[in-house]
Amino acid sequence: MIRFESDYLEGAHPLILKRMEETNFEQTAGYGNDPFCDSARQKIKKLCGSADVDVHFLVGGTQTNFTVISAILRPYQGAVAASTGHINVHETGAVEATGHKVLALPSEDGKITAAQVRQAYEIHWNDADHEHIVQPGLVYISQPTENGTLYSREELQALHDTCTELNLPLFMDGARLGYGLAAQTNTLTLEDIANLTDVFYIGGTKVGALFGEAVVISNPAFKKDFRYLIKQHGGMLAKGRLLGIQFDTLFTDGLYFDIARQADGLAMRLKKAFLDKGYGLRFDSYTNQQFPILPNDHLERLKEKYSFAFWEAVDASHSAVRFCTSWATKEAAVEELIRDIEKL
Amino acid sequence: MIRFESDYLEGAHPLILKRMEETNFEQTAGYGNDPFCDSARQKIKKLCGSADVDVHFLVGGTQTNFTVISAILRPYQGAVAASTGHINVHETGAVEATGHKVLALPSEDGKITAAQVRQAYEIHWNDADHEHIVQPGLVYISQPTENGTLYSREELQALHDTCTELNLPLFMDGARLGYGLAAQTNTLTLEDIANLTDVFYIGGTKVGALFGEAVVISNPAFKKDFRYLIKQHGGMLAKGRLLGIQFDTLFTDGLYFDIARQADGLAMRLKKAFLDKGYGLRFDSYTNQQFPILPNDHLERLKEKYSFAFWEAVDASHSAVRFCTSWATKEAAVEELIRDIEKL
Amino acid sequence: MIRFESDYLEGAHPLILKRMEETNFEQTAGYGNDPFCDSARQKIKKLCGSADVDVHFLVGGTQTNFTVISAILRPYQGAVAASTGHINVHETGAVEATGHKVLALPSEDGKITAAQVRQAYEIHWNDADHEHIVQPGLVYISQPTENGTLYSREELQALHDTCTELNLPLFMDGARLGYGLAAQTNTLTLEDIANLTDVFYIGGTKVGALFGEAVVISNPAFKKDFRYLIKQHGGMLAKGRLLGIQFDTLFTDGLYFDIARQADGLAMRLKKAFLDKGYGLRFDSYTNQQFPILPNDHLERLKEKYSFAFWEAVDASHSAVRFCTSWATKEAAVEELIRDIEKL
Amino acid sequence: MIRFESDYLEGAHPLILKRMEETNFEQTAGYGNDPFCDSARQKIKKLCGSADVDVHFLVGGTQTNFTVISAILRPYQGAVAASTGHINVHETGAVEATGHKVLALPSEDGKITAAQVRQAYEIHWNDADHEHIVQPGLVYISQPTENGTLYSREELQALHDTCTELNLPLFMDGARLGYGLAAQTNTLTLEDIANLTDVFYIGGTKVGALFGEAVVISNPAFKKDFRYLIKQHGGMLAKGRLLGIQFDTLFTDGLYFDIARQADGLAMRLKKAFLDKGYGLRFDSYTNQQFPILPNDHLERLKEKYSFAFWEAVDASHSAVRFCTSWATKEAAVEELIRDIEKL
Repeated sequence: MIRFESDYLEGAHPLILKRMEETNFEQTAGYGNDPFCDSARQKIKKLCGSADVDVHFLVGGTQTNFTVISAILRPYQGAVAASTGHINVHETGAVEATGHKVLALPSEDGKITAAQVRQAYEIHWNDADHEHIVQPGLVYISQPTENGTLYSREELQALHDTCTELNLPLFMDGARLGYGLAAQTNTLTLEDIANLTDVFYIGGTKVGALFGEAVVISNPAFKKDFRYLIKQHGGMLAKGRLLGIQFDTLFTDGLYFDIARQADGLAMRLKKAFLDKGYGLRFDSYTNQQFPILPNDHLERLKEKYSFAFWEAVDASHSAVRFCTSWATKEAAVEELIRDIEKL
Repeated sequence: MIRFESDYLEGAHPLILKRMEETNFEQTAGYGNDPFCDSARQKIKKLCGSADVDVHFLVGGTQTNFTVISAILRPYQGAVAASTGHINVHETGAVEATGHKVLALPSEDGKITAAQVRQAYEIHWNDADHEHIVQPGLVYISQPTENGTLYSREELQALHDTCTELNLPLFMDGARLGYGLAAQTNTLTLEDIANLTDVFYIGGTKVGALFGEAVVISNPAFKKDFRYLIKQHGGMLAKGRLLGIQFDTLFTDGLYFDIARQADGLAMRLKKAFLDKGYGLRFDSYTNQQFPILPNDHLERLKEKYSFAFWEAVDASHSAVRFCTSWATKEAAVEELIRDIEKL
Repeated sequence: MIRFESDYLEGAHPLILKRMEETNFEQTAGYGNDPFCDSARQKIKKLCGSADVDVHFLVGGTQTNFTVISAILRPYQGAVAASTGHINVHETGAVEATGHKVLALPSEDGKITAAQVRQAYEIHWNDADHEHIVQPGLVYISQPTENGTLYSREELQALHDTCTELNLPLFMDGARLGYGLAAQTNTLTLEDIANLTDVFYIGGTKVGALFGEAVVISNPAFKKDFRYLIKQHGGMLAKGRLLGIQFDTLFTDGLYFDIARQADGLAMRLKKAFLDKGYGLRFDSYTNQQFPILPNDHLERLKEKYSFAFWEAVDASHSAVRFCTSWATKEAAVEELIRDIEKL
Repeated sequence: MIRFESDYLEGAHPLILKRMEETNFEQTAGYGNDPFCDSARQKIKKLCGSADVDVHFLVGGTQTNFTVISAILRPYQGAVAASTGHINVHETGAVEATGHKVLALPSEDGKITAAQVRQAYEIHWNDADHEHIVQPGLVYISQPTENGTLYSREELQALHDTCTELNLPLFMDGARLGYGLAAQTNTLTLEDIANLTDVFYIGGTKVGALFGEAVVISNPAFKKDFRYLIKQHGGMLAKGRLLGIQFDTLFTDGLYFDIARQADGLAMRLKKAFLDKGYGLRFDSYTNQQFPILPNDHLERLKEKYSFAFWEAVDASHSAVRFCTSWATKEAAVEELIRDIEKL
């Protein structure tokens, strides 16, 4: 079985394992107060073009999402998000478990617009009964989205401007951020993102690390006591150095970007193969997740050899599915899959 | 200004105030452990046709909703409800504040069907990633709904059967239950409701009381320690007798039903006046809430003399609005309004 | 049975019931936006010597405590309180249910000192692992305490100064505040309290009202969106006018203070009777709660005719108990009890 | 600087890193549904002497504690624990953040007794106002305790019997369980512990792993849907295999026990050195944590070369401190420290 169903099928990039082995017997303080974390923080700050951002390392995406969101919101506020947003559909109600409603906006491709945010805000504040309704308290977006789509610089700028005007912090879930930054259609840098969001994170789990997400806080209002929140929510790794080592390695010699570029490139080859074969695409993704629409019988045939994720039924005889590439995807595997697609 | 915007514009039915005055100096134990509460409980049990239900008195509807829902659900479960359900839109996220997501189902008229419940259940359990998704944990319905519509006996039976089959407790918000029971189209008794739900409540606040909701628990699984939950959520009134006195009075000589019948009757006269005038209805309600659609300029003229609630814009020049009657609505006020409608 | 076990044994002061009856058919807006609430707010502001405080009306004490505390604290902060504080022992974990630990300080008489607060603060911040420990986020005190004792002006000033210095908001639970203000040993006015706390409340439930607590917010930081929190926590009464009517009546012609003075006076007569008989006192209270220590066999004899609350065993043959007076306590009942004490 | 301040100063046992490297490119399903986790589960079940226990892998101790505790408790229940219990003092209120109070019992050495549990239970249920008080809902113990002390077989049996009788689930925090099992005074096996607790966990983070805790659920009542809770609380690692690989390695050829035995042995040598020097011990520990009491000036001298943790001031001139050994502690380092102790 050749697996394409997710981007967390293997361990970590070998350079990370190597670094962990080399440093294994060094003694360091725990909980992220170690030289590896410090070094990784410096590298990330530099890439963000600011010494003033705070950088914290958490273990996983769900944890990061509910930790950041509960840090920002007041108890009666909710998180505005696309209805397809990870926090709305795939985190077992983790945000609600911290007491907050997800205020879902309709979305075709996984993105929401500045105009939608403004409208949600105005509907709330224009309602005579607004005190009886959850108040929009922040805007959550994913880059790339759960559907592989990307916010352009203009779109993010518009969200930033609207959020700033409406006093709504903007939080970007970057669980797959690398694959976004490396996409051929990308128009954003880490520095742009640090400037245009209040908080965002750089995903490690799906981009070469064993695990780990690097949270970058630009808005000073949310820096205070953030470590208390990490600890309370179970995100403060005793051997925090493991996160430092991983992010330090990923941001040495551009490894993070190389990994993502490679994976995106393989995904583009897959995309071309699907299109060449005449299949439609559920979403037009330029990142490591591809969402072709195939006849169900073709999918059955592919399943004998490949694993991929069912996404949704499109009609009685066609389904959208997801194929992911990652840092670990072998070129040979992609080529073999392409040949098999051609034969369908 | 003659007010019709809600059904909680005045104090309480005079018999309630009279009873409160008569008993004012009697000394009783607190927290609902008094003879008035006991007497009210007995009357409600009798109306429910069962000595085995538990009856508790809480202060208000939002409080009752989140207390019951958090009593039933496990931490990772959510409450299935119509998107228009009170818990989803008008309780400032009270259910989420107890850690639970509201799983909203689309609804045109405020009702949800057994088929919708089954579908939501199946979608959840058929999803390979269901552990990452909030699990449906109970079904919440309102009778009458927030739109004045009613579940029929058949509809409630179907919901009950489906919920029983799927092991989903059924909880009915009866904040305006009296107006439902007294409606000319009603096909349900309190006994039916006690039989067909796991928990429901009989609203007092909007049906003649100063405040108060009587929770009836049929399912033995949810009886244990319910008073702890009431106390923890701030619903255990020190002078609990006030709730007992009110419900005891409401269920003496059928006062609760008389009040509701009178209010529904006045609402039906209003409805006829709107229809006779040629106005449409946003929802076809046979209860104390009426939702006519009027030209905006007509509404402006009515506003000079009457208050009512804006519901939603229907088109550029028409809006749906809500007029409520209650136990306190004066016949003369309704007649005056009808005359003014005829003149529009 | 003549009851002395609590101060919520009867209904409300007759003037309140009278006012409710007189205004019963007036139509008003709901949720506290009515002229009665407005009038009550103005009277309370005047008594607090400031037009700048915000005044909100909630239904009960537990509800008020967890609403205010969750409004003030950040998620990782706790409420510093006496170990005997109501929030620590008698609210079924309502504060914890909003996510916050109660940081209990030892207390003999129900009070805590400025020095204790400073020490708790310093222990926290001097701990190398303070990020792993709940951060002190506010100080909760009760006036009178649960043991009937009172903070003096100097003690409250010292708490205020320390709290201000340490940036710890000071919140006073005034569930029985009237009985404190009316005590012969009292040195504080409502104006003092408004000046020396960030938030406090004036208890109605136990001082003549059917129910209700008036929250006074002096610190501008906690005024914003407080009504959202009231609604979310089930404290926003639909017929909010009932709270307005009650507090407006209580603060007309000094009724609140008259009620409390009368009850305190009767309590002092009881206290004298216990002392004259040679009984000890568990706490030296000048308010409406008295805590004599009696031989258990004497208590058994009193129990035949009177109800009172067991407080704690003092030794094998003696127990401390609580007798409460209230606005409704009849002078004759107290005199009868005194005669029976003398006969023991 | 030679570090002894904790048992999480280094990476992981080399065999773990080796295994991670060997398996790095194998493709597996995520979230713990992989062959490595399956294999580790089988090994743990075998050691627990039961195929019927459920085994889950979480990332860290705080996370495990609040996930298990919130899985067991009803909303109005609390966790009975020693006042020194990790959940009460060093998890930033994580348990309270899930809505539950920690019901702290006094403890000199970190342990609580069956008699204390019974007393707490009886005090609660004998209180006339028990509905106003947090209900004891489970008993939390640590083995070894935070002070390095151990429950004997008899003590654990007594706790189990009492808990069973009182229907209080017993949960054991085994963050350092290995060091307990390997202690020369230990009288318990994993099988005993599985039999005598409802849920416990086998700590990996502090016993040779990079991170990870293996939860063993014996009580069928708590097995249902546990994975939902892990996910909701951020404990479901995408690359769950990492946990499987680690625990599988630790439980191959007794590595887990060897590691612990080695660390305990070094700790015993340290203990002897402290005793030989005439120092007192704050706690009489036979595990990897040692708590000698030293004159402050001696501590100052040791600090120049060694790191250790301050525990508490014993008197004006003496302090208790903590030295930890671990799987990674070098014999030479311990010998050097012993020589330096002798020279003090």
